[in-house]
Amino acid sequence: MTRRSPTETGWPYSRPSAADKRNTMITIVLQQEAIDPGRIIRDTGSDADGALVSFIGRVRSSSRGNTVLSMEYETYDEMARKQLQKIAEEATSRWSLTDCTVVHRYGRVAIGEASIVIAASSPHRREAFQAVQFIIDTVKEKVPIWKKEFYSDGSSWIDGKK
Amino acid sequence: MTRRSPTETGWPYSRPSAADKRNTMITIVLQQEAIDPGRIIRDTGSDADGALVSFIGRVRSSSRGNTVLSMEYETYDEMARKQLQKIAEEATSRWSLTDCTVVHRYGRVAIGEASIVIAASSPHRREAFQAVQFIIDTVKEKVPIWKKEFYSDGSSWIDGKK
Repeated sequence: MTRRSPTETGWPYSRPSAADKRNTMITIVLQQEAIDPGRIIRDTGSDADGALVSFIGRVRSSSRGNTVLSMEYETYDEMARKQLQKIAEEATSRWSLTDCTVVHRYGRVAIGEASIVIAASSPHRREAFQAVQFIIDTVKEKVPIWKKEFYSDGSSWIDGKK
Repeated sequence: MTRRSPTETGWPYSRPSAADKRNTMITIVLQQEAIDPGRIIRDTGSDADGALVSFIGRVRSSSRGNTVLSMEYETYDEMARKQLQKIAEEATSRWSLTDCTVVHRYGRVAIGEASIVIAASSPHRREAFQAVQFIIDTVKEKVPIWKKEFYSDGSSWIDGKK
C-alpha cells in the first residue's frame, strides 16, 4: 500500500476496504463522564503487539493569556461519532494497527482532565506513532466539536482547531 | 533553537544547558516489578500541559516466526540509568517538555506486559510526539539492555535493537 502523509490527503476519505480493516478493532466512545486513560491503555492491544502509543489531550489552565477555570465541549453527537469512526478507519487502512480506540468527552471538563484519549497498538512502533498523530491532527481539523472556555470573569466560545 | 532530526545527531549528546532544562521534570526508573502505565500517565504532566504522549513497549507473543513464552531483560543498572537520563535530557533540551518519565523493566517479563513506558507532556502536542519517538528510538539504539527470549523448547539472546 502506498502511504501518504496526512497533508497530502483530501477529505472526505474513501472508506477502507474490508481487507485493510481485517483484524483491526476500532472503538469510538463519546462520553460525559471523566475518561480513565489507564483503563483504555489496559484494554487496547493484543499479545501480538509490541507497541502501544497513546495521546491524551488535557484541558490547560491557560489559553492565549487567559487563566482558564474549565472547558465545555459541545458536539453533534451522531455526526461527531461518525467522523471519529471514519478517521479511525482511515488510520487503520493506512497503518497496520491491531486495535484503535478514540474516546472524546463532552460537557464540562475540569483543568487537567482528559478531553480526548487516543490509543493505537501495532506489532511495531512506527505505525502506531503515525496513526495516533494522524488521528489527533484530523480530529482537530474535521470533527464538529466546539469548545467554550470559562474564566473567573466570563466565558467564550473558541476555535476548536486550537 | 535549531531542531534536528534524531538521525542527524551524533552520540554522545552534549549535556543540555540549565536554561534548556528549566521547568522540566525528568524521572528515570529501572524496576523489576510490573510497570503500571496508568499510574505513570496519571503522574506525568501539569495543569499547563495540553498534551501527554506515551509509548508502551510490550513483550510480543511471536518473534521472527517463533512463539515466545516470556522475555528476560538484563542490564548494567548504573550505565543504563545514566544513559536513559542522558537521552531524556537530550529530548527535553530539544523539545519544550514539562515532564518526561522513562520506566524500564528488567528481569523476566510476561507476554503482554510492558518492558518500557515513556511519557512526555508539553503545552502543545507536536513536541511531546517528537520527544517520545526520539526517546524510544534512541533507547533501542544506545542503552545497554539485553533481551533473552524464552520458547517452549529453549531460549536465545537476541539483538536488543529489534
